[in-house]
Amino acid sequence: MNSVVSVNIPSPAAAPYNIRIGPGLLDQLGALVREVAPAPTCAIISDTNVAPLYLDKVSATLSRVGYRTITHVLPAGEAHKTFVNVGAALDTLLNARVERATPVIALGGGVVGDLAGYVAASLLRGVPFIQVPTTLLSAVDASVGGKVGVDHAAGKNLIGAFHQPKLVLTDIATFATLPPRELRCGLAECVKHGIIRDADLFAFIAANVAKITACDHATMTELVTRNVTIKARIVEEDPFERGVRALLNLGHTFGHAIENVLEYSGIQHGEAVALGTVAAARLAVAINLFTDTDVRKIVDLFELIGLPTSCPQLDPAKTFSAMGTDKKVRAGKLRLVLPTKIGDAVIKSDVDATLIQQAIASLTTAASARLC
Amino acid sequence: MNSVVSVNIPSPAAAPYNIRIGPGLLDQLGALVREVAPAPTCAIISDTNVAPLYLDKVSATLSRVGYRTITHVLPAGEAHKTFVNVGAALDTLLNARVERATPVIALGGGVVGDLAGYVAASLLRGVPFIQVPTTLLSAVDASVGGKVGVDHAAGKNLIGAFHQPKLVLTDIATFATLPPRELRCGLAECVKHGIIRDADLFAFIAANVAKITACDHATMTELVTRNVTIKARIVEEDPFERGVRALLNLGHTFGHAIENVLEYSGIQHGEAVALGTVAAARLAVAINLFTDTDVRKIVDLFELIGLPTSCPQLDPAKTFSAMGTDKKVRAGKLRLVLPTKIGDAVIKSDVDATLIQQAIASLTTAASARLC
Repeated sequence: MNSVVSVNIPSPAAAPYNIRIGPGLLDQLGALVREVAPAPTCAIISDTNVAPLYLDKVSATLSRVGYRTITHVLPAGEAHKTFVNVGAALDTLLNARVERATPVIALGGGVVGDLAGYVAASLLRGVPFIQVPTTLLSAVDASVGGKVGVDHAAGKNLIGAFHQPKLVLTDIATFATLPPRELRCGLAECVKHGIIRDADLFAFIAANVAKITACDHATMTELVTRNVTIKARIVEEDPFERGVRALLNLGHTFGHAIENVLEYSGIQHGEAVALGTVAAARLAVAINLFTDTDVRKIVDLFELIGLPTSCPQLDPAKTFSAMGTDKKVRAGKLRLVLPTKIGDAVIKSDVDATLIQQAIASLTTAASARLC
Repeated sequence: MNSVVSVNIPSPAAAPYNIRIGPGLLDQLGALVREVAPAPTCAIISDTNVAPLYLDKVSATLSRVGYRTITHVLPAGEAHKTFVNVGAALDTLLNARVERATPVIALGGGVVGDLAGYVAASLLRGVPFIQVPTTLLSAVDASVGGKVGVDHAAGKNLIGAFHQPKLVLTDIATFATLPPRELRCGLAECVKHGIIRDADLFAFIAANVAKITACDHATMTELVTRNVTIKARIVEEDPFERGVRALLNLGHTFGHAIENVLEYSGIQHGEAVALGTVAAARLAVAINLFTDTDVRKIVDLFELIGLPTSCPQLDPAKTFSAMGTDKKVRAGKLRLVLPTKIGDAVIKSDVDATLIQQAIASLTTAASARLC
């Protein structure tokens, strides 16, 4: 008497989009948004750091092309990238009667982009999403890949969605107002891209640290363009993280655990990635994948930039345990990205736990640039 | 100096799945879940109505095939289909250390399915989702289409995602424990399928009301199979609701507004859909799309089933205003599904507001089966 009905629902078609990079682009935002997401209304999500600097300008460019703008301003900081704050933003937008065509514009760094993207994914089951990254980190990392979401007490980015933007507009002039520490954090991800895929990019960064930290427009535009291109090509090749895309997690399984153990306080994501990358590089040496000379090059570049390469207060046992919560765990096994040379890396899931703990412990003793 | 990087990320491939329908299938759940979502752990989300009846049985069948089970039980009722309760379920699951492979199993009616589906979509940016509908309504409606989500003060289902299940298992024996009112609500959606697409189904229901309400196994299996087949074929044809799929909203734009105005109290979704379908049918007559004779057939069938066809306490002005919040509003225009005959319907977006209000008002005066 039983019956079976087969259902085969087509997936949405891929929707290509552009990442625009350059100084002064913020003034063109309204016209560019209208091209990709015409609607009577648009929503801007920003935070208490960025809104005072750029919200008026952004609202004005959107109003000028005819949008009614709805604004939601979050408290700044990773501690506020929470499910509860997603609910607060949804309340603001739904109470203002958004429609399916209403674009949600993320104006700010990674926290704003990740949270606003999840709001855009969830609102009416998905509305257009526009990213306006105002930090180097979010410009080179969060603006490609469609990963959006929020943190949970059990770990970072454990709640979220995949939701591709319709447009990313990176006005690199906004980086000039970044605290130097924020800029360094963005550079950590750029160095990571160099290590996993592009030795030339690694060399370009090493040769241009002063210009980059001074936010020289031409150098910064080139830096962002090279980095988003690397990330875009990797994600296009492997959108569902079955292979090469996982390399982007270099330093992140260690890094997320470090942030978690330090309770996201006194450490920023990019700093944790730098520490995690050093740990991964040393682990790679321990299993004969990588050389001490290349570890030295990585440590030297991080130190030249001003990123930490050691963290004496870290508890190695706790950090190792926190790595078990990472989303990349599969059937209880840790999958780690390890460099094989500057410009290439591999995934390993059979690394001895003792060696992993030794790599973490090396961060507490190594006589190099300290965190805090 | 500006640069543009084009990004074109492929969409996920379509993932076909089976809907299994029959009496006694609950015992096979463990083995069938293991086929589509093998993992060390599975999560079951249910509610306080359904858990006491079937949770032990379901847990046992899953444990038998080796799953560690995590359980989250919601308070029963549409009032609890909230964003806050999604957060509570995510807390339970994340604190129990779920992995990306962990399936989330919805055991219950539409509220459980919609909420658990959104949990599955959001957890680690998406984990496998299994639906075990225990009501006729959720079996014929929510189990096809991938629409998951929760309500908001501004309207129903305004927050959510598209997340297709890996398996739907409908044990029609569970319908025997349904309150008769719940079963009638499911039949409202079946009648709707008949009106928009299949005059034979409409006639099958009319000829079998007694057997259906007695939950005769063969009749119920046929009813569910015919209905999910209709819905599956419509959604396959138009997964993104650009055309024919919108017909499934017959009675729903009116219905959602009615539920909203009555504050989701004293009325169930299927009852609101019956009222909304009657309003839509009368509106179709007013613009010469449909005949009075066919309106009579619809009203007669709803009354034979025991569904309401009038609602004297409804405030027509408020109801009309609430229709403006519906997700189907586009650029301020209401898009309504109107029947053209029993077995076919069309979308209209240019209907005169006065006629819409008259159709709503007809529900308050018509001398027919009353709600409450």
